[in-house]
Amino acid sequence: MSLALAFPKAVDISPLRHFVTALGTVLSETDDEDLILVRGSGLLADLVAHDDWLPAAFAIPHPDYYRQYLLHCDSRERFSVVAFIWGPGQSTPIHDHRVWGLVGILRGEELVEKFERDEDGRLARVGQVQRLRPGEVDILSPRIGDVHRVSNGLPHAVSVSIHVYGANIGAVERAVFDLDGTARPFISGYANDVVPNIWDRSKSL
Amino acid sequence: MSLALAFPKAVDISPLRHFVTALGTVLSETDDEDLILVRGSGLLADLVAHDDWLPAAFAIPHPDYYRQYLLHCDSRERFSVVAFIWGPGQSTPIHDHRVWGLVGILRGEELVEKFERDEDGRLARVGQVQRLRPGEVDILSPRIGDVHRVSNGLPHAVSVSIHVYGANIGAVERAVFDLDGTARPFISGYANDVVPNIWDRSKSL
Ligand SMILES: [Fe+3]
Ligand SMILES: [Fe+3]
Ligand SMILES: [Mg+2]
Repeated sequence: MSLALAFPKAVDISPLRHFVTALGTVLSETDDEDLILVRGSGLLADLVAHDDWLPAAFAIPHPDYYRQYLLHCDSRERFSVVAFIWGPGQSTPIHDHRVWGLVGILRGEELVEKFERDEDGRLARVGQVQRLRPGEVDILSPRIGDVHRVSNGLPHAVSVSIHVYGANIGAVERAVFDLDGTARPFISGYANDVVPNIWDRSKSL
Repeated sequence: MSLALAFPKAVDISPLRHFVTALGTVLSETDDEDLILVRGSGLLADLVAHDDWLPAAFAIPHPDYYRQYLLHCDSRERFSVVAFIWGPGQSTPIHDHRVWGLVGILRGEELVEKFERDEDGRLARVGQVQRLRPGEVDILSPRIGDVHRVSNGLPHAVSVSIHVYGANIGAVERAVFDLDGTARPFISGYANDVVPNIWDRSKSL
């Protein structure tokens, strides 16, 4: 065992494996987005119901900005699962996604502000700021609105959310926005060169 | 970027991503095993034609025994891709697979001995020992015979082969055999707790 490829502390990552397999099965059975969002929400709610499976190496915040750790990407990029790690005070720019998405809170709290364009092309906030708590799941889609800004809801602690998208989200060409509506190209990438091996049933990670 | 999750040396891992996506597409189009083996062999031959994409962290031999590093597993465990790293003198026991498989040589040489049961239930070697060289691909299937022993073909150097199976091979309940035909249960597992992130198009690994 190479030390660099082993974790110092063991967790049982099987809930993530079960989620991936179950969502892969949903996507092989339907391409109806409403059905994917309904079934996917239920599966993600199960995954974030217990905060006991994410290896600590994938929950390390950056001091200056939020981090996106890829946890799994489907062979044909039909979906990806990403851990977002929010340090105190950290937030995204206003951005879009271009594909369906699910956001489940694993730890801490997340604030979500949704936006749409008004008649001048400026971005206007839609509805109240949502505060999501552990176990809660939010959905997004270009059909129902997928422009938002997300922030850590805790001023003095790290929050962790699990995001699922209908593509390899780190490679999607999308946009960040100023409030005046100016769009700039955005490809998020990922913070990590290695993802967890969720497939070894002979041990926990 | 957490140091533990980053590689010291960059390679362009995109050939592996292209292989995974292409094989995922083949499997979404057919479940005919002959067709999978034919198309998969062609894709694997392309992948092992150039030894320039495997991150060094996944090619480190163990001093005492051959190593299996998982490189990718499909969301629904329809296939897995594994790097086998052979130190000098290392070989597998005689074993089976229970699913289709493809073996492509990336670096060095591999010796393959195939076996089947004779009328007493003992294992007898079938045909000559095959010596596989870089770029060559061998196939196996329970239908055509999937009991073999594989060894490093180089007495003084490390060899590396890329294996592809029609399941999450590290979790398959299969068997190792003595020459008298005695079978013992075998689940191979994997050497690595993390697999390469092949999905970040914004950088090389
Ligand atoms: Fe977002
Ligand atoms: Fe084998
Ligand atoms: Mg898949």
